[in-house]
Amino acid sequence: MIAEIIAAGSEMLTPFRQDTNSLYLTAELNDLGVSVAFKTIVGDNLAHLIGAARIALDRADIVLFSGGLGPTEDDLTREAAAAALDLRLSRDAEILTGMYKRFAARRMVMPPNNARQADVIDGAIILENKNGSAPGQYLDTTIPGPDGQLHRKIVILLPGPPKELKPMFDEACKPLLAASLPPRHLAKRMLRMALIPESQVDARTAPIYKEYADIETTILAGSAEIQLHFLSAKPSLEEAEARVNELTAKIELEMDDAIFSSHGESLEEVVLLMLGMRHLTLATAESCTGGLLAERLTAIAGSSRYFLGGAVVYSDALKTIFADVPPTTVADFGPVSSETASALAEGIRLRTGASLGISITGIAGPGPGAPGPDADKPVGLVYIGLADGQITQVKELNLMGDRERIRYWASQHALELIRRHLL
Amino acid sequence: MIAEIIAAGSEMLTPFRQDTNSLYLTAELNDLGVSVAFKTIVGDNLAHLIGAARIALDRADIVLFSGGLGPTEDDLTREAAAAALDLRLSRDAEILTGMYKRFAARRMVMPPNNARQADVIDGAIILENKNGSAPGQYLDTTIPGPDGQLHRKIVILLPGPPKELKPMFDEACKPLLAASLPPRHLAKRMLRMALIPESQVDARTAPIYKEYADIETTILAGSAEIQLHFLSAKPSLEEAEARVNELTAKIELEMDDAIFSSHGESLEEVVLLMLGMRHLTLATAESCTGGLLAERLTAIAGSSRYFLGGAVVYSDALKTIFADVPPTTVADFGPVSSETASALAEGIRLRTGASLGISITGIAGPGPGAPGPDADKPVGLVYIGLADGQITQVKELNLMGDRERIRYWASQHALELIRRHLL
Repeated sequence: MIAEIIAAGSEMLTPFRQDTNSLYLTAELNDLGVSVAFKTIVGDNLAHLIGAARIALDRADIVLFSGGLGPTEDDLTREAAAAALDLRLSRDAEILTGMYKRFAARRMVMPPNNARQADVIDGAIILENKNGSAPGQYLDTTIPGPDGQLHRKIVILLPGPPKELKPMFDEACKPLLAASLPPRHLAKRMLRMALIPESQVDARTAPIYKEYADIETTILAGSAEIQLHFLSAKPSLEEAEARVNELTAKIELEMDDAIFSSHGESLEEVVLLMLGMRHLTLATAESCTGGLLAERLTAIAGSSRYFLGGAVVYSDALKTIFADVPPTTVADFGPVSSETASALAEGIRLRTGASLGISITGIAGPGPGAPGPDADKPVGLVYIGLADGQITQVKELNLMGDRERIRYWASQHALELIRRHLL
Repeated sequence: MIAEIIAAGSEMLTPFRQDTNSLYLTAELNDLGVSVAFKTIVGDNLAHLIGAARIALDRADIVLFSGGLGPTEDDLTREAAAAALDLRLSRDAEILTGMYKRFAARRMVMPPNNARQADVIDGAIILENKNGSAPGQYLDTTIPGPDGQLHRKIVILLPGPPKELKPMFDEACKPLLAASLPPRHLAKRMLRMALIPESQVDARTAPIYKEYADIETTILAGSAEIQLHFLSAKPSLEEAEARVNELTAKIELEMDDAIFSSHGESLEEVVLLMLGMRHLTLATAESCTGGLLAERLTAIAGSSRYFLGGAVVYSDALKTIFADVPPTTVADFGPVSSETASALAEGIRLRTGASLGISITGIAGPGPGAPGPDADKPVGLVYIGLADGQITQVKELNLMGDRERIRYWASQHALELIRRHLL
């Protein structure tokens, strides 16, 4: 069965707002074995909405609407879906009573327009909205097609706000859909790799995953990382899981320690977990990334147990003030140098008392390095230092792209350097 | 005239990828006076694409395709558009020669499939692609409608990658479209305000902007900020600009210093500009935001002139090591206290030699404050300190939301505190 998602709302036809519900709905539908073949975005215009609904009923088996269920004159999804189906709307007494009660409880008079939210397409099941006032609707029906035959259609009306749509779909709608579709048991896994070209991942893993035609494999290139998504659907959960585990075991063997996460954790989370397992602490000294590495680590709840903090040593003076880098090192080799990176990592480790000190210094651009030793160094040149009290290693990088990309990739390289050190 | 944008590509029907070109195209079309009435996302399936193209030609005057112009078998937009228009594709000798030359220059043999990129819909103008191999196409034609009359249709084929689509639209396509449409002169302005509720902005500004019915006003609530967008279209640029300036002057008078930017600059940029104008420098001491404030400031190129750096004082010990906070202050009042925030701001200012020291300490959650004086303090409690060498002010905040939101709002409050101090 194929689905079409119709997002209703004029704001999604401006340069400022986008339909995002369809990403969530697509993931959920795929889990049920349903592909999304079309997505349509249409404004708050009855004729446009009826037209879009008719087209969707013609080309898809399941039509999901998001948005347009509110109480205002712009909320036209109920009317449009009913018109396209050639069915009537009837005002549901129970919904209406509930609405009057909610307004009364707040000592307010319900505006007459709100009663429209109680209009239900004949034959539809009402989907409770625990997080808002607009109920959803679910209709499993047959309609005559252009071929004169009757065709089964499932029509679903969901509210636009994601905080209302997601729980409603999950709790009320998904069980109804699942009951109408062949049973399916899914196993999913995600493997993540940092700083490796997509082409290399594909070249090495395709010969393996192509032997598992029954497993849906998706390679996604994200921010300085590659994700491999695997999905297996089988008559039983055990079969599905066994099949995915068999494939991922082979991929993990091939890609070995390039894989930083085999259950979806982020690189920051993995680094913090590894520090925790080894009872180690970390401190950062950042120049060109300006706090990005520390910010990524502290975005993870609980990071304070293993991440002590650090310094943003943007000016040369602060490299000395906070990490005891000898002024002569900066003067002789430049702030962007292997020597400075090394001194920063060692200095921040000693200053903070952390087990590991990591440093980043580089030229993020768009302007060139400062006058002096760095003047002729290229944009994208970055040094990362890692000190553990015994040895200090420095990695030289030549990164491509704009300021934002260079900074992000530098922070990713720093995390990956720590991870590989802790392996 | 109304437009429909069709994004072609199966990846946009997965849970992982979204059409983003349509936001850019919508902004550009709106500037030309064209509204987007429908957006359709369709996979790499010829029948689906032809169907979607026919529907779009039926309900829109301008149909823009993005994607599906590559050389692979999945690239079907040329074929689908031609079929829906009932026109033929002809292989263009000039494009083909150019392609052979490009391959030859790289000493490669062109795969036969690539020749498909030279297929042009009869009557279409070729749009040069300076950033890729797939040329675009522009066709201004008439087709018979369901009413038997001839209808003018403009059909535009653009490549999917944003780095190819945007310059092609801007340089090759927009001039053609502009020449086909009534002349229009636009003036645009954006006013930005931080940390103010949308309802308050609307209540205060609506009585003003509603008197300018000829100006399109959009209120957008972003991350801890509100944006007011104004767009005026007039027969001459002078008229349009005069009209927008008249309205924005009134709004600026009403909202006064709540407006941090009247030409679209970000809050970080404004703070750095103001520091520069006053020849001042800044340093940060961050606990709960963990480097986010420094990261936002250093994301701006050239920030190193006014931002020296700072410390991420995540552990209590680092508050003393890097900012000389007396250990008794932390012990007596807790790391999340007005006293600690004040000492951090003063300490980081003195340590770094900056003109201004700003500090952030708070409970970002989801867990509670550390044992001791902070144990019973609520998630979302944040203190921001600002020291200028003469006085130190501390602001107490009770922020709502999850860890990410609390951290971002705290950094926004810190920037806004600096801005208002510098006013």
